[in-house]
This record gives sequence, C-alpha cells and structure tokens, in this order.
Amino acid sequence: MRTLVLYGSSRRNGNSEILTDRVVDGIPCTRIYLAETQIQPIIDQRHTETGFAPVDDDYDRITEQVLAHDLLVFGTPIYWYGMPAQMKLFFDRWSQNLRDKRYQFKATLAQKQAYVVLTGGDNPRIKGLPLIQQFQYIFGFVGMAFAGYIIGEGDRPQTVLQDQRALAEADGLNRILREKLHK
Amino acid sequence: MRTLVLYGSSRRNGNSEILTDRVVDGIPCTRIYLAETQIQPIIDQRHTETGFAPVDDDYDRITEQVLAHDLLVFGTPIYWYGMPAQMKLFFDRWSQNLRDKRYQFKATLAQKQAYVVLTGGDNPRIKGLPLIQQFQYIFGFVGMAFAGYIIGEGDRPQTVLQDQRALAEADGLNRILREKLHK
Amino acid sequence: MRTLVLYGSSRRNGNSEILTDRVVDGIPCTRIYLAETQIQPIIDQRHTETGFAPVDDDYDRITEQVLAHDLLVFGTPIYWYGMPAQMKLFFDRWSQNLRDKRYQFKATLAQKQAYVVLTGGDNPRIKGLPLIQQFQYIFGFVGMAFAGYIIGEGDRPQTVLQDQRALAEADGLNRILREKLHK
Amino acid sequence: MRTLVLYGSSRRNGNSEILTDRVVDGIPCTRIYLAETQIQPIIDQRHTETGFAPVDDDYDRITEQVLAHDLLVFGTPIYWYGMPAQMKLFFDRWSQNLRDKRYQFKATLAQKQAYVVLTGGDNPRIKGLPLIQQFQYIFGFVGMAFAGYIIGEGDRPQTVLQDQRALAEADGLNRILREKLHK
Repeated sequence: MRTLVLYGSSRRNGNSEILTDRVVDGIPCTRIYLAETQIQPIIDQRHTETGFAPVDDDYDRITEQVLAHDLLVFGTPIYWYGMPAQMKLFFDRWSQNLRDKRYQFKATLAQKQAYVVLTGGDNPRIKGLPLIQQFQYIFGFVGMAFAGYIIGEGDRPQTVLQDQRALAEADGLNRILREKLHK
Repeated sequence: MRTLVLYGSSRRNGNSEILTDRVVDGIPCTRIYLAETQIQPIIDQRHTETGFAPVDDDYDRITEQVLAHDLLVFGTPIYWYGMPAQMKLFFDRWSQNLRDKRYQFKATLAQKQAYVVLTGGDNPRIKGLPLIQQFQYIFGFVGMAFAGYIIGEGDRPQTVLQDQRALAEADGLNRILREKLHK
Repeated sequence: MRTLVLYGSSRRNGNSEILTDRVVDGIPCTRIYLAETQIQPIIDQRHTETGFAPVDDDYDRITEQVLAHDLLVFGTPIYWYGMPAQMKLFFDRWSQNLRDKRYQFKATLAQKQAYVVLTGGDNPRIKGLPLIQQFQYIFGFVGMAFAGYIIGEGDRPQTVLQDQRALAEADGLNRILREKLHK
Repeated sequence: MRTLVLYGSSRRNGNSEILTDRVVDGIPCTRIYLAETQIQPIIDQRHTETGFAPVDDDYDRITEQVLAHDLLVFGTPIYWYGMPAQMKLFFDRWSQNLRDKRYQFKATLAQKQAYVVLTGGDNPRIKGLPLIQQFQYIFGFVGMAFAGYIIGEGDRPQTVLQDQRALAEADGLNRILREKLHK
C-alpha cells in the first residue's frame, strides 16, 4: 500500500497537519504540501476545438504522484466552510486530467481509496459537513472509495491537541492504516 | 441600490454567465470576472506576530468594490461540486480583510444582501446543495443576508437556455431586483 | 401518465397543500392525505425468523396506489426540519414492502418519477435542504428518478400565496406536468 | 448532571441501542424507549382559535422527563435516511409544547445539552449527515447545545460491534460524560 498525503493548508505545522500526521504516523508516505506548489487555475477548454492546452506548472508531477499511490489522504483546514483555494486549484484541474490521453485518470482513481482529515475553528463537526459531502461527490464521480474522514476542532495553533475526540479518532484511523500496510 | 456581480467562471460567456446576466438584465451593475483578476492565495498569518502582510494584487481593489455596493450577486459554475478556485481565492482572503484596519469589513457586509446563481452539469439541483450550504455559512459568518439562489443545469455551451425552470426562476428574480431598484 | 399526490400535512388546506395543488392544477390525479390514514409504525422484523407480520391498517391499500401510478408528488410541510411523522410512518414501512412477496416493490418504483413540494416557515430554502437530501437518498435507494422539487415559504395560513418565487416555480412545474400528460 | 436517553428504534437490543448504551455505560440515566410509548401525531392547531387541544397519551409525561434532565442523548437507528417515525412523532409535538403554558419549554431546553448516537446500514457516515444537520437545526431552534454525535455502521444484529471506529468514539464520549458526572 503506497500512501500519498496531500496537505491543503496555507502554512506548515497547523492544526490540520498535526492531526493528519497523527493519522499517518509510522506509515511510509509521500507528502505534498499543495500551498508550496504552483497549480494554475483550470481554464475550461472542454468545448474548445483544440481541447486543453498544456500548462507549465507543477500539476502534471502531482498527478503522476496521485496515480502512483493506492491510498490518498487529504489533510486540510476548513477555510470559509470549504477547502482552501490551494486545494481546490488541484481538484479543478481534474477536468483537464479526465481528457488527457496520457492518463487513464478516472479508471485509475477508481481503484484507490481516499481519507479526509479536516480541522476547523467554527463548529467544524457541523459546519464542515457540506465539505464532507463535496468530497463524497468528488470521489463518487471518479469511483474512488471514500474510506473515512475525521473532523477536528482547532483555531489557534496547536489547539487540535486539546480535542481529545479528534485525537482518539486519529489514533483509531492510524491503527486501521497500519493494518492495511501489511496487506 | 448598487449591485455588484462577481463571476466565478474560468471563461466568458458560459452557462453561469448567461443565467446570471438574465438575473441582472436591466439592472445597472458593476461586474467583476474573478478569473481575469489576480488574487494571491491567502497565507494564514492570523497567528503571526506582525499579522497579515500586504499583498500586491487586485484584491484590495475588489474589496473596495464589494464594500461600495449594496447587493452582491455571485454567479458561478459548479466545479467539482464546489465553487471554482478562482472564486475561493477571493473568499479565502476575507480572513485577511477581517483583520485589516482600513475596513469595517464584517460590519459593512452585515448591511448587504447576497444572491447566488449556480450552474452545473451533474444533477446540480441536488449535488449543488452542499455549495449552497457553504454560501449560507459564509454569509452567516459576516451577518450578510442570503436573499436567494438559483440553480440551473447546463453542461455544454448554451445548454442552460434549455433549462426552462432555471430561466423562469432567473426572470422571477430579475423582477424582484427591478423592484428593489426603485426603493 | 397516472399521478399520485401524497400529502404530509396534519391538516387540510395548509400552505403545502395550496402549493402542491397549484403544481398539479388541471392534472388528473389520485390524492392521499396521509394524516387521514392509519399507518402503524414499522416494527423492524427483518431479522426475525418469520419475517414481517401482516399489519391491519391502511398501508397495503396505499402501497397499491403507489405501485399503480407513474408519477408521485410528495407535498408536505417541513416539521422540525424534516418530513412530518405522518409521512415518515409511510416511508418507514417501505422496509416491509421490500420483503413483501406480493410486490416487486423496488423494481416497480425504479420505473417511476417523484417530485417534492415543500413549504416551511423558518428559512425553508436553506433549512429544508437536508430534507431534500434525504428524499434524494430515499429515491436513490429504490432507483426512482427525483425529477424535481420546489420549496415555498409560508408560516401562517395562506402566506405561501405571497411567495412569488414559489408560485412561479409551481406554475412552471405545472406546465412541465401538463406536457408529460400528453406523452 | 441528570441524563435522559431517548431511544428511537422500533425494537430492543438493536445496533443503535448497543452503541448508545456503551456511550452511557456507568452513567446513571433515565431511559425512554419511544417505540414503547404512545405519542399521537401532532395536529397543527397553531392557527386555530382555541389553540392546541390536550391529547391523552404518554407525551406530557415524556415532556416532563425531558424538562427534568440536563443532558439528552438521542440514540436511534437511521430509517430511510432520517429518524424513525417513532422519534419524529416526539419532535413534532414540540410545536405543541412551545405553546403550552404549563412549560417554559424553549427557555428550559436552552439550558440543556444534547448528544446524538446514530447507526445505519447504508454508508451512514455520509448518508446520515442530512439527519445530523436536521438535529442541528432542531436544537438550534430551541437554543440547546449540540454537544456531539457519533455515527456507527451496522445492519444485521450486533454488527455495530465490528465497527471499531464507532466503538472507540463511544468509549471516548463515555469518558467525557463520566467527567461531566462529577461536575
């Protein structure tokens, strides 16, 4: 099982990273900090005669990482009740990947599993639910299994460490991932 | 009543623009095509000693437009069951505005009204609902009235023009806006 | 096209009935006022050796009506952000129908279409969305097409008649149903 | 801290009861199995001159229990992506309580806390979210704190005992309740 962690936060060491790293503790994984990559916004050329033009940024490299791993962990803070733009830039370009003849994008994703780890400061276990539903629709579109999610509370730095419930859930998910590791 | 329309699409003349323009037909308004502006991703410096650093892009100018209008219309396609990254870049920076001493950002927004016009290709009246709920939480956070929304169906260019229900709703909303115009 | 209207309100002539009747105006239809029927609560006997025991109430008769029509319209007020218990009693018994050898319940429903007409007093176009999502999951489970929904605002008697948007949507849906009538 | 558990299942010893009882293990509590009580459906008489007529069933007794406890735990299976009718009958009658001069219903509830424990068989951590959102709106209306929720997976009898994540969450919540006990 090869694991890829995609971080959505605009900065390092935030609450979402703390919680996500607890989930993957001891699991060999590749890490991508999306805010430190360059991803151009999608330009919708689905209906242009020549189709999508190649884009010179980090996106192809990230796509290749996505395709090369079995398990994707999306660890991200909730910004304004959704995923940060840095992560949305990534998903929006999936539209381009779907039409990219170099990849069997949808068919390949359909064999993977995804986990989502969210943190937020404003009642995230309720107000983060539309974002969970969005992830469900995204994964459902490509046929990727949504294997689970965790929502932690944390506003100021490190405060997720006081969310005993989120920590327990992260530890529980870590045990599940460790078991998968040996399969 | 001063009206500002913020378009989220990555390209001109798409279904969301068609439907939105029908909503504001005959209404004097300022238009911002977010995909044609430069908005840097938020860097979360809420917990940095010096706070948010000034950013050299189009965002301040857009903020000033937002603050100067009474009614905000967000017209956008649904990308991957959420708003396009181009629009999310805009909202994410609200966190910076909240701490910007030049503005009374939250208090000023609390006196405004917002409408949302969405279009999407994959069962948008159901699968667009998490995005509507996200807008509700966003507007609720700043105390801005969520005055209404329309969801139209359209995938290929112009196809929203075949969604009779969406067109009728757009016309109905247009009548409401025209009445507000004279108050 | 045979149309069945199932009303969820606890009383006659309420806002949801007004709006629903506008949707089916001029459409020949069978009407069932669920609050005026006797439906016993489901007793979950899926895991009992002898299975579900027959129940002596109005439910079988209602089921037969459901199966005998092509288009189902659920017209109901929102009570406490969900459907009234009188309507939930009806849906809960679907679990029994699924195992009732007299019916091909799921396969038959899969050929039908459903519309939902809601009214509510507390911001129903937002706070009614979880109920819409619930209907989507219900219809999706049996493979029935969720052809559309309308949400009207109305608290005191007749007030839905002041919701111009809901009335326009009802009229638009009425036109669609009239067209289907002749197919 | 006085704790009241309201069970929504149509039968005893089901998955939702197992999970809920694990949450309140060692906590002195009053238990009401709603399916074993008689609650008449609400008849909406808000707009009747004489108001709500008294109803001869178990509801007043249940209301008095609700008012007499500090912490309410709603433990219920998900039936058709919502709460069972047996539990909805209970909530629908809140409309009557709000107008009942014997009670300060809303003001009293506003001082309480609520937990929700759900189990379901069809992807409940996703498809149970509209029900969680409904609970949020219900509790929000009366100003009662929504202190937390757990969603477990279980279809056939006892299968929730194989949902390690739900069990861990139940144990975690149990620890929190035990701590509250001594405050």
